[in-house]
Amino acid sequence: MSMLSMNLATLRNGSSFGEMIDDCLRHGVTAISPWRDQVAAVGLKEAALIVETNKLRVTGLCRGGMFPAPDAAGRQAAIDDNLRAIDEAATLGADCLVLVVGGLPGSSKDIVGARQMVADGIAAMLPYARAAGVPLAIEPLHPMYAADRACVNTIDQALDICVELGEGVGVAIDVYHVWWDPNLASAIARAGDMGRIFAHHICDWLVPTNDMLLDRGMMGDGVIDLKAIRAMIEAAGYTGPQEVEIFSRDNWWKRAGDEVIKTCVERYRAVC
Amino acid sequence: MSMLSMNLATLRNGSSFGEMIDDCLRHGVTAISPWRDQVAAVGLKEAALIVETNKLRVTGLCRGGMFPAPDAAGRQAAIDDNLRAIDEAATLGADCLVLVVGGLPGSSKDIVGARQMVADGIAAMLPYARAAGVPLAIEPLHPMYAADRACVNTIDQALDICVELGEGVGVAIDVYHVWWDPNLASAIARAGDMGRIFAHHICDWLVPTNDMLLDRGMMGDGVIDLKAIRAMIEAAGYTGPQEVEIFSRDNWWKRAGDEVIKTCVERYRAVC
Repeated sequence: MSMLSMNLATLRNGSSFGEMIDDCLRHGVTAISPWRDQVAAVGLKEAALIVETNKLRVTGLCRGGMFPAPDAAGRQAAIDDNLRAIDEAATLGADCLVLVVGGLPGSSKDIVGARQMVADGIAAMLPYARAAGVPLAIEPLHPMYAADRACVNTIDQALDICVELGEGVGVAIDVYHVWWDPNLASAIARAGDMGRIFAHHICDWLVPTNDMLLDRGMMGDGVIDLKAIRAMIEAAGYTGPQEVEIFSRDNWWKRAGDEVIKTCVERYRAVC
Repeated sequence: MSMLSMNLATLRNGSSFGEMIDDCLRHGVTAISPWRDQVAAVGLKEAALIVETNKLRVTGLCRGGMFPAPDAAGRQAAIDDNLRAIDEAATLGADCLVLVVGGLPGSSKDIVGARQMVADGIAAMLPYARAAGVPLAIEPLHPMYAADRACVNTIDQALDICVELGEGVGVAIDVYHVWWDPNLASAIARAGDMGRIFAHHICDWLVPTNDMLLDRGMMGDGVIDLKAIRAMIEAAGYTGPQEVEIFSRDNWWKRAGDEVIKTCVERYRAVC
């Protein structure tokens, strides 16, 4: 069985970094993926020390990206921030830096132009990422976020950027964002052929979904065929961790980390 | 300039069918697209008489579809209902019957299977539709509706079904559902080459979107580049009506039809 990793955004209930790690370890979870604000809250050095002391695997750092901006200064500021994110990922020994690429800048309606800003932004940070040994994982986001969070919305679209930019950039495949894609099987196979599957995130799509951002489901509570997608990903050659990432303001974020992680482990064994 | 059509779902403020038509005519709008419940409320014969008397063009009847069901009896019931919808469309002289194809049946997680049920359902109704002279317009819905409303989520996916089934079935291109598609330009060109663009629906994508179903925006209030998409559609050979379809529970549905239609006409001239 592959490894379960806890994306720490799943545990946004007010716990400290150290408490989250203690909760993970109590349930045998030794892989994590923190967000930059969570690392900053405890301090990068302290976070890295906790990771090293506990021999944790860091399956990703969330997140870089957000490249489009109305002017050149804004786009440069985004790139500068991404370089700092690379440093942080390197310090933590993260498997990759996850990129949520950003949506339409300002009041723009030019999604083609926004997509070019994304490719340009990744191109600008890529030499630094390669030198630091930090793979960049473009995370295609669900099309419902195309305007305000990410204008890269399918695996194939992300892979086209990878082809353009070369080595060091791949994809993070989050089932929540891609489960609906009519081309899912072929896109995952293509990503595997290219050797560009850098991360695999899991959760579930609830029916109904009451909030477009903060109502993701626990694995097994929704409609995503997680085993089928995992089979596609393993057939494509990726047998790495499955990382649980659940934004759930009104349900899982209200529960103790201990209960959340216990449930994640149970569901991981049962339905993933 | 092409013709503006009012999809009567835009006017769900309690007005009767006749009142909606009066509001349309007062603003020079002579094309409509009613929903089946709106036709049933006034009676099919009376609706047809109003259409004929006022020389209205009916750019579509909404909606058929909803093919997937957990068992054969359920799927047959859906087909039977679709045959009645064809009769209604024929009686109204509608340009097409719009198909919202349905999502996952029951507690199924098999989206590939659901998609097959859709193709099978359309195939089953197609001979009857051809005989009645009613074109079937598959409306790809935004991927956020893949689970519960429509598992056909891109123009290309709908066109693949058209290729499989032959003449008499095409696509309704609603900007709300497809604006994000990285393959939008090529998909519209393909639809035009195939001669399968049967309808063009317009509204806008608001940022933020506060409700996944009932918070569509008036043209010009969101991020969709309507002129650019219209240019693609006209370049593909479709110069037919642009049909305004806005589900807006907390805004436009609360306003008088007169104000809504007046605004639609103004925005149509300015930004479409």
